[in-house]
Amino acid sequence: MDDRIIILIFDGIGDRPVKELDGKTPLEAANTPNLDKYSEEGINGIMDTIAPGVVPGSDTGHLALLGYDPYKVYTGRGPFEASGIGMKLKSGEVAFRCNFGTIEDKIVVDRRAGRIKKGTDSLAEAINEMDFDIDFVFQESVEHRAVLLFKDPSLGPFVSDVDPHEEGLPLKKSKANREETSSQLTAEHLNRFTEKSIEILSEHPINIERKERGLPPANVILSRGAGAVPEMGKLEEMKGLKSAAIAGIPLVKGVCELAGMDIVQVEGATGGLDTDIEAIMNGIVDNINNYDLMIVNIKGPDLPGHDGDHMGKIEFIERIDSSLPILENIENTYFAFTGDHSTPVTVKNHSGDPLPLIIKGEEVRVDAVDSYGERSCATGGLGRIRGSDLLNVLMDLAKRAEKFGA
Amino acid sequence: MDDRIIILIFDGIGDRPVKELDGKTPLEAANTPNLDKYSEEGINGIMDTIAPGVVPGSDTGHLALLGYDPYKVYTGRGPFEASGIGMKLKSGEVAFRCNFGTIEDKIVVDRRAGRIKKGTDSLAEAINEMDFDIDFVFQESVEHRAVLLFKDPSLGPFVSDVDPHEEGLPLKKSKANREETSSQLTAEHLNRFTEKSIEILSEHPINIERKERGLPPANVILSRGAGAVPEMGKLEEMKGLKSAAIAGIPLVKGVCELAGMDIVQVEGATGGLDTDIEAIMNGIVDNINNYDLMIVNIKGPDLPGHDGDHMGKIEFIERIDSSLPILENIENTYFAFTGDHSTPVTVKNHSGDPLPLIIKGEEVRVDAVDSYGERSCATGGLGRIRGSDLLNVLMDLAKRAEKFGA
Repeated sequence: MDDRIIILIFDGIGDRPVKELDGKTPLEAANTPNLDKYSEEGINGIMDTIAPGVVPGSDTGHLALLGYDPYKVYTGRGPFEASGIGMKLKSGEVAFRCNFGTIEDKIVVDRRAGRIKKGTDSLAEAINEMDFDIDFVFQESVEHRAVLLFKDPSLGPFVSDVDPHEEGLPLKKSKANREETSSQLTAEHLNRFTEKSIEILSEHPINIERKERGLPPANVILSRGAGAVPEMGKLEEMKGLKSAAIAGIPLVKGVCELAGMDIVQVEGATGGLDTDIEAIMNGIVDNINNYDLMIVNIKGPDLPGHDGDHMGKIEFIERIDSSLPILENIENTYFAFTGDHSTPVTVKNHSGDPLPLIIKGEEVRVDAVDSYGERSCATGGLGRIRGSDLLNVLMDLAKRAEKFGA
Repeated sequence: MDDRIIILIFDGIGDRPVKELDGKTPLEAANTPNLDKYSEEGINGIMDTIAPGVVPGSDTGHLALLGYDPYKVYTGRGPFEASGIGMKLKSGEVAFRCNFGTIEDKIVVDRRAGRIKKGTDSLAEAINEMDFDIDFVFQESVEHRAVLLFKDPSLGPFVSDVDPHEEGLPLKKSKANREETSSQLTAEHLNRFTEKSIEILSEHPINIERKERGLPPANVILSRGAGAVPEMGKLEEMKGLKSAAIAGIPLVKGVCELAGMDIVQVEGATGGLDTDIEAIMNGIVDNINNYDLMIVNIKGPDLPGHDGDHMGKIEFIERIDSSLPILENIENTYFAFTGDHSTPVTVKNHSGDPLPLIIKGEEVRVDAVDSYGERSCATGGLGRIRGSDLLNVLMDLAKRAEKFGA
């Protein structure tokens, strides 16, 4: 049996020196005996997910890690979000992330309609019965979230958002960002769709009931993040790897799904700080025998990064570390331990700082690094590589790479 | 206020081990307490301005450092030289560097017309009155130097030089280097322009007077370095940075000007060994509050590099080092200390050896390097990056980068 590959992606793990930690990063400050051991047993490096200094999104970052060029396949978040909630997509269709929101006199007063939890399925059903000039599908997701898909393949994805992104502002008119008829058409359709959504939702029984109960009605669809469904080759065809992903958040699931990977559903893997890390690790153990490659996103470290909470980040990293030993039972496997982007607590957002990376497995050129951190890994034998190199490096180690040339 | 960025480019600073310096490079041998301190406080690395082993020119090197792809925007030196002396250019026009030279019986006997200093303005005026089939502008620069601009946008830039580059040889006929009508046309125009310049200049009173005084007449325009004015996006539009440059030599000023940067004129910044480094540093301090980005070229180290003078290079580097502390008063700023290319004293010309690089600022991942040199920086936390990455890395650190994706 050929060696297998498991890539553990600690979302947002990379950071910058933090004053309150005596100039250490949260990862450097965290007590991570297991990751440190893997550093010692493996080869280490730093990785620019896209390119040095380029700030990855979760979508573009995972695309790069799967070996795709995000500059070629990515036009916006919509299609990845759509795929992540299980919608079937065809390349060329245009998808939008949506919220159910609340407007009063054309002013957006609540971008999440009071974080509406129930009844969005009925609202979506009513929307889908809309009399509209082009084929579309509207699908509700969790809470106030939803996705809109324009199925007409002649439309372009380069349009601005209807969502004003701030409460107290009027709805925006979508406009084409490029001088092309196809995107201008999309903007026109989207504006008309938005108007009609208001008409349909305002009179809907669910909203009448919400108003009676003093809750903000979900009376508008706020759309954003337009993107065209890309023509993406499947990982299995391109790399010959039977692949699966475990991920808590729809966006990452969507990227993996569009890459043709199986999605392994793990109960308790929420994508939040409450996620069940042990369940995720068990999900790997239980499924790896069916796959050549598993990619596992653990969202946790990103969240305290966004909140600027260095202690929370340390704590979550330590929880990850203590859950790892079960993976040591998996044989004949090359492991990568890394992230998709940095989310420094000093930045409170994604950054382009490179990620620490360990590759562990039978035949790696073990280096002198013996702890897992942004700076220790920078002195390792892998040097500085790119996200799009990672899978190739791992396939090569696992003797799964094909020679280019003779 | 967002953090600002200052890039100090020590022209030609990179070098190779020198026997006479016990195998140290001039930079390693120089006493640079300030740069060493910045190394210790910062993160270090090495940088290939264009790509490993590719030998940059001053023009292509600075283009790469500003984030442009020189393989896309560069066809020859002409337009950057033209822009550097203040000519207004339109994309597609073809520019040439020129010398006033001296010919006798079609043989070039002096490529610089005795380094003529006065009267070139009158000569240029006469040239510009030439009866010629296409629009052109000819403008004198310092001493024997000048620039010729063909303003016809249908011309191609791929033509050989009229200048034989060696004295005692006949004038060359310009020829197209590519089989394209547009460049063939340029060669024909250039050859006719050269013939006509001889006719006009030979009879010009300035030259009659020079001959009477026993000076070589400036009786021919020797052109070289044809290049098309590129369609270059402006740095401010592309990166959102209000930017300025300080540079001693027109070529570098020209690159920065075509990138849409302001040029800060510093009295005493000559681009020679006599340049006033303190004045340059004061120029930074006096202007940084008006800009997000300043790029500062200090030409000095390149000159002894070309001369093979390792002691001269050490001395100039030490002069730079001692002038740096005034910059420590500038707050909220990320600094890069690097070069545009190596000019090893053993090569006496530009080389593709990577450049030492320090990045210093609030949130960098400080590494273990504590001296500024080609080899010490190679062990630093930045690893090996490219010139085209530098601005992205700095913008990311300064929290000025935009996320690509979601």
